[in-house]
Amino acid sequence: MFVTVQKSVLAEALAKAARMVAKGDTIPILNCIKFTATDEGIRLVGGNTAHTIEVHIPADNDSVIIEKTGSIVLPALLREIVRKLEQEDVTIQTNGDLITTIKSGEATFQLNGIDPEEYPSQTLKNAGRGAFTLTGEKLKDFVAKTAHSASKSGTRPVLEGVFVQTGEGKLKFTATDSHRLSLIERLEKTKEPLEAIVHRDSFVELVRVVDEQDEVEITLADNWLVAETKGMIFRSRLLEGNYPNVDRVIPQDYTTKVGLNRSELLSALDRLSILTSNKVVKMSVKEIDISHVVELETAEAEKGSAQEMLFVEGFEGELLEISFNAGYAIEALKALEDTDVIFGFTGEHSPFTIMPKNEAGELQLILPVRAS
Amino acid sequence: MFVTVQKSVLAEALAKAARMVAKGDTIPILNCIKFTATDEGIRLVGGNTAHTIEVHIPADNDSVIIEKTGSIVLPALLREIVRKLEQEDVTIQTNGDLITTIKSGEATFQLNGIDPEEYPSQTLKNAGRGAFTLTGEKLKDFVAKTAHSASKSGTRPVLEGVFVQTGEGKLKFTATDSHRLSLIERLEKTKEPLEAIVHRDSFVELVRVVDEQDEVEITLADNWLVAETKGMIFRSRLLEGNYPNVDRVIPQDYTTKVGLNRSELLSALDRLSILTSNKVVKMSVKEIDISHVVELETAEAEKGSAQEMLFVEGFEGELLEISFNAGYAIEALKALEDTDVIFGFTGEHSPFTIMPKNEAGELQLILPVRAS
Repeated sequence: MFVTVQKSVLAEALAKAARMVAKGDTIPILNCIKFTATDEGIRLVGGNTAHTIEVHIPADNDSVIIEKTGSIVLPALLREIVRKLEQEDVTIQTNGDLITTIKSGEATFQLNGIDPEEYPSQTLKNAGRGAFTLTGEKLKDFVAKTAHSASKSGTRPVLEGVFVQTGEGKLKFTATDSHRLSLIERLEKTKEPLEAIVHRDSFVELVRVVDEQDEVEITLADNWLVAETKGMIFRSRLLEGNYPNVDRVIPQDYTTKVGLNRSELLSALDRLSILTSNKVVKMSVKEIDISHVVELETAEAEKGSAQEMLFVEGFEGELLEISFNAGYAIEALKALEDTDVIFGFTGEHSPFTIMPKNEAGELQLILPVRAS
Repeated sequence: MFVTVQKSVLAEALAKAARMVAKGDTIPILNCIKFTATDEGIRLVGGNTAHTIEVHIPADNDSVIIEKTGSIVLPALLREIVRKLEQEDVTIQTNGDLITTIKSGEATFQLNGIDPEEYPSQTLKNAGRGAFTLTGEKLKDFVAKTAHSASKSGTRPVLEGVFVQTGEGKLKFTATDSHRLSLIERLEKTKEPLEAIVHRDSFVELVRVVDEQDEVEITLADNWLVAETKGMIFRSRLLEGNYPNVDRVIPQDYTTKVGLNRSELLSALDRLSILTSNKVVKMSVKEIDISHVVELETAEAEKGSAQEMLFVEGFEGELLEISFNAGYAIEALKALEDTDVIFGFTGEHSPFTIMPKNEAGELQLILPVRAS
């Protein structure tokens, strides 16, 4: 292999490939990036056991010259080297011993490469089953509104995933760690109906490398989710198991509905959190004179106590007191975008929902905690 | 105590006081900030066993109203609370039980205060002995050019300090961890001659809170260094012990002098460091045709090897090969500001110096390592 690439183009492709590379040392070759130069251009592959990415640098481009095709596996620290180079062009050349020379200006690096045959195969047996197509921007939105609710601990691996469902022209993402739940459902370009559980980290990595304006085509092949977009193929190993049926926890009627300004509520919860080690706050919906207010207070007294008051913008139903984890509420509120949100309650011991006022198909749900 | 303060003014003062506050829990009262309101304004004190700061918010200012004088000790998390408030004004009011109410808009916090009598006294027995006066900008320069060479490990506590000397109208800072040394000496406004060892962390904290354009007056009182500047008094406990005599390690003559472009050298060392776990690089001063070059190479081959070449801008003496820690050289070069630097060698096993080409009174010195 012998190629010349423009430094900025190579650095960008390496940044995408290297961020997927395994950090530990259990399978050393996964700490590497596979380079393949063909007449079409250069293909970089990086990944770990959960997800991999393939990045293309097309040859029909002033930024690449393919002198000699070939393939080599190089340590991911190449990304750091290229990032710190100062000259415009970088040449990468392998010799028979797998030793690869990277040259740019007066800098010369010889990296010990690995035989590309040893790199895990990326070939999938079955062609992808059609799933859905959406823009990078919309995919980011789906992930941002759900991933925070997926479980961080490993006791129920299936809950570390985001549950993806398509059918009837709709795309639906659900995530829950059994203390809270997030859900978004919208009309999107879907094909045959399917269900899949994708690890939250895979989705988070995927949306970091996708351009907002590009179309992303998502299919299932073997036990992988495959996301294709301009110059890039991302694969995430599906989580196996049954996703719990969460429909029954979502309230259909509310006994109390309260409208609040999202950013005011966020700041108040943020301040109250400073004083609580367990993050529990108590919310009281009260009537003062002829208007309704929400009072928030800390439920702990070691360092001190705090109260915040917010004016309600729309009230229906009964007054109520309920305690919940402010951290969950903060994450839920940050995932929404509307200026105003509606809290829907069905009693102080039942899960409550937070929904944007002017946006259908989105829901954040939190289980209350028993106040001490 | 009952005061009303403009939020931004209070937040700024708290930020300075809180950063000095002890992080651990060994002496809980040091996790707090002492507030004192007098007719002159509000004084905040924060600190740990190594250094303390006193910040003044003067009352002759539209931003402060002293309703009732008094004093209280409050947890440093008050800084977080104030930073996150949204209204312009904050009131702080204590009651007889030491409970202190902080109010701003619809937010109310009650913090459990501590009796101010329990806070460590700040009174120094002896008046400060005059030392030196310089601007915040110059003080930053003195610290930036030396502190990195002070020892990070605790085997010889005295080496964790910066050695401050005045005399004959000169101010001199020296730091060494016995593998490298940094020194800066300039004419400044000094008073009686003195010597003191100040912990590197104290200097680093001090220069972070000092304004560049303000004059800083530094004196010694009891076993403290006291730095006074506009609205602020900083105290650092002096390190006890004898600072080693470092003059004998500084070469007076050189057998090789090499001029190099500082930023080119920095980038080259930065790239080479990616490939070395022990940071050792070998520098060879060579003659190619009729010009001189410096070749740098890694001294390790596990991941691969690398070479960089730099053109020498001024050469005197003998050709030479020397190995050293690239990390030390990078920190030394970052501490200098000139475009060009001069390396001075007296042999491959002797300490070498790096000096700015156009700036006298500054020196970085590094001990070579034996190449494997």
